[in-house]
Amino acid sequence: MNRVNLEQKVLSENDRIAAELRQRFVKNDILCLNLISSPGAGKTSLLERTLEGFAAESRGGPHVAVLTGDIQTDNDAARLARFGFPVRQITTGGTCHLDARMITHALEGWRLEDFDLLFIENVGNLVCPACYDLGEAAKIVVLSTAEGEDKPLKYPSIFFKSALLVLNKIDLLPHVPFDLPAARANARRVHPEMEIVEVSCATSEGLNAWRQWIEQQRKELSARMIAGIA
Amino acid sequence: MNRVNLEQKVLSENDRIAAELRQRFVKNDILCLNLISSPGAGKTSLLERTLEGFAAESRGGPHVAVLTGDIQTDNDAARLARFGFPVRQITTGGTCHLDARMITHALEGWRLEDFDLLFIENVGNLVCPACYDLGEAAKIVVLSTAEGEDKPLKYPSIFFKSALLVLNKIDLLPHVPFDLPAARANARRVHPEMEIVEVSCATSEGLNAWRQWIEQQRKELSARMIAGIA
Repeated sequence: MNRVNLEQKVLSENDRIAAELRQRFVKNDILCLNLISSPGAGKTSLLERTLEGFAAESRGGPHVAVLTGDIQTDNDAARLARFGFPVRQITTGGTCHLDARMITHALEGWRLEDFDLLFIENVGNLVCPACYDLGEAAKIVVLSTAEGEDKPLKYPSIFFKSALLVLNKIDLLPHVPFDLPAARANARRVHPEMEIVEVSCATSEGLNAWRQWIEQQRKELSARMIAGIA
Repeated sequence: MNRVNLEQKVLSENDRIAAELRQRFVKNDILCLNLISSPGAGKTSLLERTLEGFAAESRGGPHVAVLTGDIQTDNDAARLARFGFPVRQITTGGTCHLDARMITHALEGWRLEDFDLLFIENVGNLVCPACYDLGEAAKIVVLSTAEGEDKPLKYPSIFFKSALLVLNKIDLLPHVPFDLPAARANARRVHPEMEIVEVSCATSEGLNAWRQWIEQQRKELSARMIAGIA
């Protein structure tokens, strides 16, 4: 078997397991979101601010769980566990992406019916995670203003496959050579229907739009459930 | 053949081609440096400032060539070609790293004896390029202060394998939560002998130390050539 055939076999096996995961998420009315970015673009900070917001809500807030992937260390799980929601670290030990089998294992022992919302924080890598379906309802790509507005054109696959672009660190705009209109245009050149929210986890700017996007996805999932088409 | 065996076969084939490249570089007294970082950490900006400096020198400066890798677009080659040195883009078309065979192909038609210094700018990815020897004299990892001081611990392989850490975007230090002493300590926890230079391509701070590091490598290469031990 040559390399291309083997890769196809690995990916089709991953797709099969991801389809099972997706069925389980839909059956339990869980919105699963797969966050992907370069190292240091701010996935963990975005989740910290998001969990902080949910924790401050009264009992009406969603029941959230988080799986966070890294090659080494459980630093991110420690950062995210402070908000009182269940968090598990997946340490890949060198592998450059999460795959569906890792998600299945990490969920063992959790009662999915207890959750409304599952965040998966992928390994920091703008390339390889794009190829691996994890059963999510949507992929979300996080791009920091420190990285440059050309990234959607240079890493098109993940921008094409993500429903939402979170443009993070907009507080740095006065200090970095980042052309915001060009970034939006580049993202939509790759993916014309892409939704975009612009946020700063340092100043909280834009976090409401991010929360509203999540709420809209939850409503759409529930509507599909009620209509029996999920 | 299972996946692990196939990966080993691919890597050992890569090592064989990389060894041939290394021999050619040594025979022609070329210092080859392989630059690796996350997307947007500033590899291209660092090379722009470096080539700009060499171009401003009198005829005594090194004869430089550049190979620059990207998944899509030839933006980086266009940026780097402005300084009058030979530059070639390697577009990987989805592949998340450069490999030795790509370098061999990209060098076709160039007279290696005309060059003293070859920069290879890898695909923006802090994970996968660490596994692929390109025949370089040294790997260099570029980390931006916008990415966070924890990255050496989370992506240890590339920090372990790189001779030099270029801590870039130090002009952003007043605006980002980056602990510089912790970044240095984390890098040396993974790789105790790691050399570190701290630079800003925006203000030029530290670029002399970077240039001196390159000059030192060139001298050591020449000394090894003369001693016949390269």
